[in-house]
Amino acid sequence: MKIGIVGGTGDIGEGMALRLSTQFDVIVGSREKDKAEATCEFGIETLKKRGQKCSLTGVSNQQVVDGADIVILAIPYKHLIGTLDTLCGFEEKIVISPVNPMEKRDFFTFTPPPEGSAALLIKRLLPPSARICTAFNTIAANRWKLLDEELSYSVPVCGDDDSAKLQVMEIVNRISKLHAFNAGPLATSHLVECLTPLLLNIARYNKMKDVGIQFH
Amino acid sequence: MKIGIVGGTGDIGEGMALRLSTQFDVIVGSREKDKAEATCEFGIETLKKRGQKCSLTGVSNQQVVDGADIVILAIPYKHLIGTLDTLCGFEEKIVISPVNPMEKRDFFTFTPPPEGSAALLIKRLLPPSARICTAFNTIAANRWKLLDEELSYSVPVCGDDDSAKLQVMEIVNRISKLHAFNAGPLATSHLVECLTPLLLNIARYNKMKDVGIQFH
Repeated sequence: MKIGIVGGTGDIGEGMALRLSTQFDVIVGSREKDKAEATCEFGIETLKKRGQKCSLTGVSNQQVVDGADIVILAIPYKHLIGTLDTLCGFEEKIVISPVNPMEKRDFFTFTPPPEGSAALLIKRLLPPSARICTAFNTIAANRWKLLDEELSYSVPVCGDDDSAKLQVMEIVNRISKLHAFNAGPLATSHLVECLTPLLLNIARYNKMKDVGIQFH
Repeated sequence: MKIGIVGGTGDIGEGMALRLSTQFDVIVGSREKDKAEATCEFGIETLKKRGQKCSLTGVSNQQVVDGADIVILAIPYKHLIGTLDTLCGFEEKIVISPVNPMEKRDFFTFTPPPEGSAALLIKRLLPPSARICTAFNTIAANRWKLLDEELSYSVPVCGDDDSAKLQVMEIVNRISKLHAFNAGPLATSHLVECLTPLLLNIARYNKMKDVGIQFH
């Protein structure tokens, strides 16, 4: 099983690629293939120094969609439509959205599109056979990158395709100490996406860093 | 300092009253004063059997507002407007809203009023000098009542009046193992209120009971 990361050279995608590549075949995409290759070289080097084997290849975003079974859209909300406009071939793919529509005004707030959530916007933009799941929304970029630290967080996963959701949950549960929870159909994704502005506000008003969440 | 619970004979109010009354002077309100008195008698008896002292008095909802320094609105969202219409005297009071606007359709979903949150609706309905805070939204009624169990949860608190918010956070931190977090101004309350439908969905789809939340 090949996992691809669209926007894999970005802040979140980079740490995600590091953690995933020790468990799965990972292809990292960028608008500029060179940048993706450089990120992967650096990643392979970093993991080698830690004595960890990995499978990590840098390609273009389109090659990620073409080559991966599971495509993670690790792109900021503001670039979501622009990026998806340039890509095709999502038919039958499992597509993971960690995207959170939000803005920083006086405080962080949830700014969903008319569809209600980034996940439902993605559903409208991609072919009907794409199997979209919401996951990884609340894991901070820094936490992905701090490889010495365990990720002891809960990860709510939404989706309408049960077998796709199960596969995504299995991937989540393979990473560090992440624990996947079925959070319901894709239409509930807004409840997950608005966790991140809440966590950012809590970090800000309590002078904390990279606050995460656990359900129990 | 006297804490009053409007709707204190309801599902959540009852357990809240039990836990709070061992630490604070608590007055419990109901539309029917008799019912509030019966709830308190039962509560005093329950705590006595456990060897715990408490201060618990049953009154009418209006007497709660008149007599308490801090008023908790432990009422379901659907009765919020109806209940507040019958009450007056909230000037200068600290008012805690644990109210979550939500509905169960195929799944639980957040159904905010035009104001954006129950907290902002309450702000519109009460006099401007009322000091409204959002708190206790995600603690399940059952958990409040299971006195043998610690409440190891995080409690996000929103509000515009810093001194009121601080007092509310201090109250939160006195109860079992609850841990208060400043979640920002009252306008961010929707981010807290929509945690509860998420937690109810997670409970449902993962066959769990009374799921709570921790930030860390």
